[in-house]
Amino acid sequence: PTIFDKDEYEDNSVAGVVTGLAWTQVGGDILFIETSISPGKGKLTLTGSLGDVMKESAVIALAYLRANGKKFGIDPRLFDLWDVHVHVPAGAVPKDGPSAGITMLTSLSSAFTQQKVRSQLAMTGEITLRGKVLPVGGIKEKILAARRAGIKEVIMCKTNRKDVEEINADYIKDMKFHYVTEMKEVIDFALLKEKVEHPLDLTIKEDVKPVIAN
Amino acid sequence: PTIFDKDEYEDNSVAGVVTGLAWTQVGGDILFIETSISPGKGKLTLTGSLGDVMKESAVIALAYLRANGKKFGIDPRLFDLWDVHVHVPAGAVPKDGPSAGITMLTSLSSAFTQQKVRSQLAMTGEITLRGKVLPVGGIKEKILAARRAGIKEVIMCKTNRKDVEEINADYIKDMKFHYVTEMKEVIDFALLKEKVEHPLDLTIKEDVKPVIAN
Amino acid sequence: PTIFDKDEYEDNSVAGVVTGLAWTQVGGDILFIETSISPGKGKLTLTGSLGDVMKESAVIALAYLRANGKKFGIDPRLFDLWDVHVHVPAGAVPKDGPSAGITMLTSLSSAFTQQKVRSQLAMTGEITLRGKVLPVGGIKEKILAARRAGIKEVIMCKTNRKDVEEINADYIKDMKFHYVTEMKEVIDFALLKEKVEHPLDLTIKEDVKPVIAN
Amino acid sequence: PTIFDKDEYEDNSVAGVVTGLAWTQVGGDILFIETSISPGKGKLTLTGSLGDVMKESAVIALAYLRANGKKFGIDPRLFDLWDVHVHVPAGAVPKDGPSAGITMLTSLSSAFTQQKVRSQLAMTGEITLRGKVLPVGGIKEKILAARRAGIKEVIMCKTNRKDVEEINADYIKDMKFHYVTEMKEVIDFALLKEKVEHPLDLTIKEDVKPVIAN
Amino acid sequence: PTIFDKDEYEDNSVAGVVTGLAWTQVGGDILFIETSISPGKGKLTLTGSLGDVMKESAVIALAYLRANGKKFGIDPRLFDLWDVHVHVPAGAVPKDGPSAGITMLTSLSSAFTQQKVRSQLAMTGEITLRGKVLPVGGIKEKILAARRAGIKEVIMCKTNRKDVEEINADYIKDMKFHYVTEMKEVIDFALLKEKVEHPLDLTIKEDVKPVIAN
Amino acid sequence: PTIFDKDEYEDNSVAGVVTGLAWTQVGGDILFIETSISPGKGKLTLTGSLGDVMKESAVIALAYLRANGKKFGIDPRLFDLWDVHVHVPAGAVPKDGPSAGITMLTSLSSAFTQQKVRSQLAMTGEITLRGKVLPVGGIKEKILAARRAGIKEVIMCKTNRKDVEEINADYIKDMKFHYVTEMKEVIDFALLKEKVEHPLDLTIKEDVKPVIAN
Ligand SMILES: [Ca+2]
Ligand SMILES: [Ca+2]
Ligand SMILES: [Ca+2]
Ligand SMILES: [Ca+2]
Ligand SMILES: [Ca+2]
Ligand SMILES: [Ca+2]
Ligand SMILES: [Ca+2]
Ligand SMILES: [Ca+2]
Ligand SMILES: [Ca+2]
Ligand SMILES: [Ca+2]
Ligand SMILES: [Ca+2]
Ligand SMILES: [Ca+2]
Repeated sequence: PTIFDKDEYEDNSVAGVVTGLAWTQVGGDILFIETSISPGKGKLTLTGSLGDVMKESAVIALAYLRANGKKFGIDPRLFDLWDVHVHVPAGAVPKDGPSAGITMLTSLSSAFTQQKVRSQLAMTGEITLRGKVLPVGGIKEKILAARRAGIKEVIMCKTNRKDVEEINADYIKDMKFHYVTEMKEVIDFALLKEKVEHPLDLTIKEDVKPVIAN
Repeated sequence: PTIFDKDEYEDNSVAGVVTGLAWTQVGGDILFIETSISPGKGKLTLTGSLGDVMKESAVIALAYLRANGKKFGIDPRLFDLWDVHVHVPAGAVPKDGPSAGITMLTSLSSAFTQQKVRSQLAMTGEITLRGKVLPVGGIKEKILAARRAGIKEVIMCKTNRKDVEEINADYIKDMKFHYVTEMKEVIDFALLKEKVEHPLDLTIKEDVKPVIAN
Repeated sequence: PTIFDKDEYEDNSVAGVVTGLAWTQVGGDILFIETSISPGKGKLTLTGSLGDVMKESAVIALAYLRANGKKFGIDPRLFDLWDVHVHVPAGAVPKDGPSAGITMLTSLSSAFTQQKVRSQLAMTGEITLRGKVLPVGGIKEKILAARRAGIKEVIMCKTNRKDVEEINADYIKDMKFHYVTEMKEVIDFALLKEKVEHPLDLTIKEDVKPVIAN
Repeated sequence: PTIFDKDEYEDNSVAGVVTGLAWTQVGGDILFIETSISPGKGKLTLTGSLGDVMKESAVIALAYLRANGKKFGIDPRLFDLWDVHVHVPAGAVPKDGPSAGITMLTSLSSAFTQQKVRSQLAMTGEITLRGKVLPVGGIKEKILAARRAGIKEVIMCKTNRKDVEEINADYIKDMKFHYVTEMKEVIDFALLKEKVEHPLDLTIKEDVKPVIAN
Repeated sequence: PTIFDKDEYEDNSVAGVVTGLAWTQVGGDILFIETSISPGKGKLTLTGSLGDVMKESAVIALAYLRANGKKFGIDPRLFDLWDVHVHVPAGAVPKDGPSAGITMLTSLSSAFTQQKVRSQLAMTGEITLRGKVLPVGGIKEKILAARRAGIKEVIMCKTNRKDVEEINADYIKDMKFHYVTEMKEVIDFALLKEKVEHPLDLTIKEDVKPVIAN
Repeated sequence: PTIFDKDEYEDNSVAGVVTGLAWTQVGGDILFIETSISPGKGKLTLTGSLGDVMKESAVIALAYLRANGKKFGIDPRLFDLWDVHVHVPAGAVPKDGPSAGITMLTSLSSAFTQQKVRSQLAMTGEITLRGKVLPVGGIKEKILAARRAGIKEVIMCKTNRKDVEEINADYIKDMKFHYVTEMKEVIDFALLKEKVEHPLDLTIKEDVKPVIAN
């Protein structure tokens, strides 16, 4: 009844793959956000049976990165030179809600920097257009699912601290929680300096004109 | 049950972020309109589970600014050289109605001037294409919510003055109300002369041809 | 329960703002059609919770003006060089039906000539693509609403004369009715020779190529 | 309850206006197809609360004329250099069905030749893409409506002759019926050699390149 | 109750008109697929109240021909230089299902070669993207309808042979059946070498650049 | 009641045709994915009454190949120079679910390499954007259908091994099962080195500029 079995979990060594925490009808579960980019013109494709609110999360995340890319070492012209595809397996499970926002933004950041994502890390939280992280529901169920999947660290909104403190401390003594209020804190922690193996070459050829100069 | 908790409130020092007042099934509440602009061709993106009427408010606000930008020191060619994204957190809460009109227009004005928005200020009112401010409902509930969130000043339509006068005067003695009939009055009051920190550079390069000359 | 309160009425000194007469579930009412134009490529935007039939009225009105602009001193190339936005406040009130046709066409004519609209004037009538004015329903309720709003003159289709004659003559003795069969009669009467203050500059630069020559 | 009152009927001296016969819930009625063309790129706009089948009739009529224009003296390049708007008053009355097909094609032919339409003429019949005229229903009710509106001649499919012969001959002794099987017969009869007053100039400037040569 | 009466049947001497067999609620019937092409850019228009599955048949047929045109003497660049319109009379009768596939492909082939279609021939069968012909239902009813309409030869999938053998042999002794498994067999049999009268000129001007070279 | 009868099965010697395993209301069945490519600009067309989830599978498969084409000897510029059509017969049978993912990716790979697909091979499994193969349901029914159709080898996710082991070993003793976790394993096994007869010429002319350089 859950989306992913524990044995499907794996280290996040591929660029653009980040572990999120979802709250489904049958309880908490982990999910993966996968972002793949390819040369193009900035088109965004979303798959994985996503509902409207979850689709909007991806749009907001991409808009935030487009406006604030420099803070993370991303040349903003890249967003007009590459197409973006965000997928959330499993494809047949309907998914919705805003709580994948920070996971999506981290996934996009990894794809556009080709930096590795910290392993054994999961996250949940809504994002706003100005980069605030908002609290979400179902924290207890999500953390139990994260634990079952071998997750060691979880990022969430500071406002959700009280929900964590209601969980039996013994049960989660091996997990570490990071409380944030800004997207920048999420990315600074989640992305490692190290690039993935065989990273894409994202340098911009000088003769390629960005869209704005056409 | 309300959209934002009091502790989520914060000063409006980021360009394009303005506090509005909403009337929901469970009473009044504050909401934030966030506008972000990025180099592009004038595309408008709307997120935040907005209903048709609220989406139209954003379209009207942008059209008004496009036609009357000069009054506010905005070069009209900017609207063809930048893309606009308007988001209203929280993403999962359906929102509708015309009363966010003046908040949206103020948010767009701040984004396109990079001027600071007056802090501890909220507003509610419908906008028309010619810049009139129309009265809206739920004034009492909205003002109580604004007070709970620490708002000190509220802008609304002159026709709504009678709704304010029905509220216990003692209860709102620390708040100030600004009654307007024209959008120009809203922007003149809500936008400070001062620019935000690290403002975007909105100067137009001479070799960029506006759309009309293509 | 009505769309606009009497005190919202005002003189039609802004280009593109024309008073129409609507027939709602709670009786007759006045409404305003607002047209705003901005440099562009001829895109038409419609807002105000308009139903399909009312949207078609705007499309027909614009098509008529495009084909017959010369009769009214409008250079037809303007329709490819300016975007058009038609809004009908109040934004949350659903509106439909063909009876705003002549009001829309008058509003568009004023916007594209920047000529003043005759004040204290309202109108109601369907328009056809060849410029005929067709009769509409709810005349009695509409006229009573116009009187309440201080309207002095009303334009409608000749076929609706019988509906006016059924109203107590004493009650409307201060109002004047203009019966027409052609759109040209409406515009000739409704638009004043005088331009609005600060009119838009609608002259066409010689180096701007009209669409047909591309 | 009918779409048009008798006194709305008038001679078809304007290019692109043709009288059709409709069969509504309350009996037969006449309707007008109005076609207006303006410089553009071949865009087709349809208004008048038309159902899917009636919209398809317009698309088929335009496609037939595009492929067979030469037979009627129409330069096929015109279809890429002019936009087409087809409207069917009254705008609020839903209309559907294929029986306006030949009326639409005649209306388009008149618009693209600027030739007068024969007066006191009405027609009803489905059109196919290869120019066949197919029979339609409701013939008796349509003819009675045509008679009430002062129509003297009616065009329809040969297969509908039997439906006419079932009508009391005395009642329609002043009317003339033209039975056809091909669209060419309809246009040859319905369009007069004479052009309308103030015809549009449809000559193609030599420096305008047709779409296919781009 | 049937779509076409027998007297509407006629020889298939016009390019692009092919007789298919349909199975409706009231039994079998014949239908005509009409394809018309005009200079353009490869746009496909579908009319005749077609359901989704029938629309997909047309898309598949066109894709097959685009990929395999050379086998039938069709220059593949034509598909980017001509627009295609497929219509299935009668316009008001909803039609659906995949069994018109081979009729549509034959109709398209005739339009793009301007070759005559064999007369007194009908066909029914689903097509796949690789050119296989698949069996369809309602064979008995379809053949009886074909016989009533004077059809002498019928093409269908080899798998449908058993359905034909269940029909009283005496009743269909004057008809000939062609069983196929590949689309190539259909076209080879259905299209005559002879061109239609006044064929379209489909030669490609040397200065016209195909899409791929842009 | 099944989608394809056994006698419709055939060797996969045509490029782009791959056998999948489906699970329908009436049990397991085989299905064929057919991919056809033609010179174009990268447009993707999907037919065969596919549901949203199955359509997303095709989009994901194409995105994966676009990002990882080099691993399989596919020049990534091809995806901007050819249009892609994926069809799943039979056209009238609604199909949905993610389990055709690996079949679609194999079909696309064969089309873009023109390499033969291994014969008497079927497969079932969901694909993710990073190339993982996920387990699917209905394994027992799918394998029985594959056996009835003469399939000798089946590819599926390693996680599905336990479902195969629950089938009576005797019954499937002539079949071979390949368990995988990555898409690369699927393609390496399913595609033969040998090209199909009359392969398409997929070499890129030097004067054709890829999209990114425009
Ligand atoms: Ca799970
Ligand atoms: Ca939804
Ligand atoms: Ca709240
Ligand atoms: Ca709505
Ligand atoms: Ca009112
Ligand atoms: Ca409607
Ligand atoms: Ca009437
Ligand atoms: Ca319909
Ligand atoms: Ca019939
Ligand atoms: Ca359907
Ligand atoms: Ca089967
Ligand atoms: Ca669906």
